[in-house]
Amino acid sequence: MKAEIAEKLVRTGKGTPMGELMRRYWVPILMSSELPEPDCAPLRVQILSENLLAFRDSTGRPGLVDEFCSHRGASLFFGRNEENGIRCSYHGLKFNVLGECVDVPSAPQACKQMGIKGYPCVERGGLIWAYMGPKELQPVPPALEWCELDPSHVFFSKRIQECNYLQAMEGGIDTAHVSYVHRYEIDEDPAYRGSKSNDYMKADGNVVFEIDDTEFGLSIYGRRNGEIDSYYWRVTQWLFPWFTLIPPSGDHPLTGHIWVPIDDCHCWTWSISFRPDKPLTEIERAEMRRGAGIHFDLIPGTFKTKTNRDNDYLIDRQSQKDLTTYSGIRGFAMQDASLQESMGPIQNRENEKLLPTDRAIAMVRRALLDAADAVQRGEPAPALSAECQRVRAAAVLLPRESKPQPWAEEHLVDAMDAPVYAL
Amino acid sequence: MKAEIAEKLVRTGKGTPMGELMRRYWVPILMSSELPEPDCAPLRVQILSENLLAFRDSTGRPGLVDEFCSHRGASLFFGRNEENGIRCSYHGLKFNVLGECVDVPSAPQACKQMGIKGYPCVERGGLIWAYMGPKELQPVPPALEWCELDPSHVFFSKRIQECNYLQAMEGGIDTAHVSYVHRYEIDEDPAYRGSKSNDYMKADGNVVFEIDDTEFGLSIYGRRNGEIDSYYWRVTQWLFPWFTLIPPSGDHPLTGHIWVPIDDCHCWTWSISFRPDKPLTEIERAEMRRGAGIHFDLIPGTFKTKTNRDNDYLIDRQSQKDLTTYSGIRGFAMQDASLQESMGPIQNRENEKLLPTDRAIAMVRRALLDAADAVQRGEPAPALSAECQRVRAAAVLLPRESKPQPWAEEHLVDAMDAPVYAL
Amino acid sequence: MKAEIAEKLVRTGKGTPMGELMRRYWVPILMSSELPEPDCAPLRVQILSENLLAFRDSTGRPGLVDEFCSHRGASLFFGRNEENGIRCSYHGLKFNVLGECVDVPSAPQACKQMGIKGYPCVERGGLIWAYMGPKELQPVPPALEWCELDPSHVFFSKRIQECNYLQAMEGGIDTAHVSYVHRYEIDEDPAYRGSKSNDYMKADGNVVFEIDDTEFGLSIYGRRNGEIDSYYWRVTQWLFPWFTLIPPSGDHPLTGHIWVPIDDCHCWTWSISFRPDKPLTEIERAEMRRGAGIHFDLIPGTFKTKTNRDNDYLIDRQSQKDLTTYSGIRGFAMQDASLQESMGPIQNRENEKLLPTDRAIAMVRRALLDAADAVQRGEPAPALSAECQRVRAAAVLLPRESKPQPWAEEHLVDAMDAPVYAL
Repeated sequence: MKAEIAEKLVRTGKGTPMGELMRRYWVPILMSSELPEPDCAPLRVQILSENLLAFRDSTGRPGLVDEFCSHRGASLFFGRNEENGIRCSYHGLKFNVLGECVDVPSAPQACKQMGIKGYPCVERGGLIWAYMGPKELQPVPPALEWCELDPSHVFFSKRIQECNYLQAMEGGIDTAHVSYVHRYEIDEDPAYRGSKSNDYMKADGNVVFEIDDTEFGLSIYGRRNGEIDSYYWRVTQWLFPWFTLIPPSGDHPLTGHIWVPIDDCHCWTWSISFRPDKPLTEIERAEMRRGAGIHFDLIPGTFKTKTNRDNDYLIDRQSQKDLTTYSGIRGFAMQDASLQESMGPIQNRENEKLLPTDRAIAMVRRALLDAADAVQRGEPAPALSAECQRVRAAAVLLPRESKPQPWAEEHLVDAMDAPVYAL
Repeated sequence: MKAEIAEKLVRTGKGTPMGELMRRYWVPILMSSELPEPDCAPLRVQILSENLLAFRDSTGRPGLVDEFCSHRGASLFFGRNEENGIRCSYHGLKFNVLGECVDVPSAPQACKQMGIKGYPCVERGGLIWAYMGPKELQPVPPALEWCELDPSHVFFSKRIQECNYLQAMEGGIDTAHVSYVHRYEIDEDPAYRGSKSNDYMKADGNVVFEIDDTEFGLSIYGRRNGEIDSYYWRVTQWLFPWFTLIPPSGDHPLTGHIWVPIDDCHCWTWSISFRPDKPLTEIERAEMRRGAGIHFDLIPGTFKTKTNRDNDYLIDRQSQKDLTTYSGIRGFAMQDASLQESMGPIQNRENEKLLPTDRAIAMVRRALLDAADAVQRGEPAPALSAECQRVRAAAVLLPRESKPQPWAEEHLVDAMDAPVYAL
Repeated sequence: MKAEIAEKLVRTGKGTPMGELMRRYWVPILMSSELPEPDCAPLRVQILSENLLAFRDSTGRPGLVDEFCSHRGASLFFGRNEENGIRCSYHGLKFNVLGECVDVPSAPQACKQMGIKGYPCVERGGLIWAYMGPKELQPVPPALEWCELDPSHVFFSKRIQECNYLQAMEGGIDTAHVSYVHRYEIDEDPAYRGSKSNDYMKADGNVVFEIDDTEFGLSIYGRRNGEIDSYYWRVTQWLFPWFTLIPPSGDHPLTGHIWVPIDDCHCWTWSISFRPDKPLTEIERAEMRRGAGIHFDLIPGTFKTKTNRDNDYLIDRQSQKDLTTYSGIRGFAMQDASLQESMGPIQNRENEKLLPTDRAIAMVRRALLDAADAVQRGEPAPALSAECQRVRAAAVLLPRESKPQPWAEEHLVDAMDAPVYAL
């Protein structure tokens, strides 16, 4: 890959083509619970390389504004979250959730020119989302399936990943790696064990992929042998610009990820487990909190995982020899993080040599580049409608002669009332 | 502010316009007590982005020389402070307090060409000062009021501040911020409480400023309502190139600051409390050592404050709600440091929007730029005389019809035998 | 020294003139014991600014290959060291010790194009050496005297030094500094004390040097007064491109060093003690492990010394006054490291002023530059033959009228069956 193209893919700051594309979508910023009540403590938030401040005003509205006061540049983090606004501690300037300046004690007439940037926020699915793009192009609110479920049906976690969003997200799209680094995890992990899917996946390592560009992003169909007259299909999706969906195993929940750039060398990796049809059990929640499935164990008071780059992900070479782990590292999330972060803060894509199993990755890159180019030309970003977000992953046995696409279009796209397909 | 002007203001390394201006003045380097006796351990000192070594020779003279040996570049910090010189441990070259090479054991005849830079030092007011400018332009020794007092009348502290000197010093000039971040401190702090001044300041938040350019720097007159027929005037000063003076409250001491660049992203913040007329009491000293008033509490063995950027200045959000602090941070010094350092290592002044209350700041910038330009043109730096340093801050009630300037000129400039004016 | 020349001397990455010169020699990479058995845990190795992975395959052969997989760039450190190859944990690509790709599970036909760089390795004298240069120019294996001794005769240690290799190696060549920073160490240190050599060295500090360019590098002859009719000669050598040899004192072992660039701001300092004629005793080994002589004490699990830059080398100023140390620092290695590292990551040689005692240093620089230039012109690197490595240091009394060169050529060059000359 040419350096110039690679740069376009990985740079997401204000004014970059990819950054401008991403700013056409609602960006997940925080869990609603991180701003637990009106007038609570504000939080510093870095997203897409912008330094911002999130707070909740006296009426409970969340706001995302410039971290720094327009006057002398002091951080509003040290401000007072007062009656419907955050007040800078330096000279008392006050800003509401829209970034409008509502008080300049020493010069009230200066209010109008002292405003700071403020991004509209909405709360959906237990998250606070911000829209950081041109006002007139603000899309409909987030409408992914898990956004519209009762909180009892959903479990979130997030962690700071020490690399560019793209190599992290590419790991999420890349189903080929499951048979390697995750090989011995499937049977062990409480969020995966004991499903028919696991049996099919272990029995047939030679997956055949069909990948389709779609209105919402990418549909990835992975085929393995099923029963004598059927194929076992796993249908996963990538949705513009950073969502992935993963089918359930047995009666375990559906899962998904979001990869959101913090800056170009760090990203938020969000992991979501959810059930459309019933609440998660307390046991499931407890296991996830301890790091089951796609989740992980955090250093208290932080979003950094206990298992991390500084401690070589607690690699245990003996467990490689014992075949209890493949790479010596435990847990799906940490297995992925170890490899993705090992590529460096920004993978050098000039040196990579893609293989046929990387087709989904190549297609996602192409889709992102095309969409970024379209936005640069003044055309709309793709997949902004609610329908485009209402997509679901599935695992299903289909007769050997059937193509999976018609089935998927009927049961997985904008059909959230359909049953969950899992094995 | 244009980027180019901002750069000129904040860069102070050798050869920069502001750096050259600052090198025309005596620079406070260390407390005399940091070099406690003849031939004591040398200290590494970074000032104005130069790496230097301070030591005291066998006769007790302080010296400030290049940190590195002229021969192979080893640090003289690892040298031996021997009979009237520091001897490099690598090959035995020896340098006196002037930087002259006085011994090259393997090649005595090479002495002359092996000298290193050495800056003249004086001790005044319990500090070691160095002159880092052109030899022929060395000014009279420091003559600020607190320099000429008996040590029993003075208390010093210094701390490393993690930002450019200018945004720190601007905080010291900026009297408008007192009513915000320091609002609840005045009544609590043992070095401020219980004065008539506090009552006037709380009763009238709407200060009216008059600011005059003077021979020594800037005089700032802040007017609040006093008694029925009088105004309460606070007279503070900024003296070229980095001194400020603050009036006393009640019978508390006079105070002042010095902001000295370490490099362009760090500065020394010196804080001085002093009484012209009588010694500080032991109780006052003990309180200051614990961080009272403009002082602070240090991590033992360092000049880093316990409350610092790494721990978010121990912010206590509940104390904001309780109105026991304004910003959640305790102590004048830490309240200032939190805001000044939050602007980043070097404040981005291209984005700032000054308000009318920033007039003193704008005038100091102008004065510094003009003086730096004058020096560049070969003209002398301002305010080098002893008279220009013999200035004092005051708080005073004057009849409503009186202007404060004539009073100040009579009682506060080169009139160190006048009584202290305080309320 | 001109900046351009200094740059040429200190830069050793791929493609730099000095880097290319160094790549014509076998590079010491690891102790054999760091890869203790077939299929043991692989190690990340940074050498000459290249990020590499060392591992031992199932037959026990050591390999040094690119750290990163050719496919997506994941680190092979997280791979599996399996039957004669390291397998990437991401997608199962497998590489042998030559860097050849021997398995691409998803696309076997792609093997040929997926190879990574692999450098030939040999084991000699308890070390693993790699050859990182053009294949057709691979020289004979390392043949230094200590390479060919039984392991019972040799003791190694290595430490990370936080500076460029050149200023470290120059310290090793520079015999003039022994009389300063090491002055009080010779009598104290168990690996030096009680020899006739020490008496001569203390009695006559005024060494006279003769230095000769040789086929292998440099011979340095240091003359002091011996007995009434003899001179005491110390013969030390520098061998292309990074070896030094030091004569024994009394019945203590011979010693030597290797300085190998990690990157341009860090190097490995190897220290070797050996006896051609008999094994080292257990007491000697125990003392060396505790840091005697040229060795040092490491933070367990690392190659960082306990005494290091972060703790100012545990400098003890009182011991300077007591004359129990010269610089306040204990141990030959740490005395050297403190000074060499104090020059900064890369010494600024534009400012240095060489003295007559620096002649050996100047000659080594010249020799390295000439050799690098020769390689750039397509000529062979010097000193690649086995004979050029079979050189030995010595301390000897010779009649006052004798020149030392003929004696040295007879007894110290390619004459490893001669007795050890020590006093």
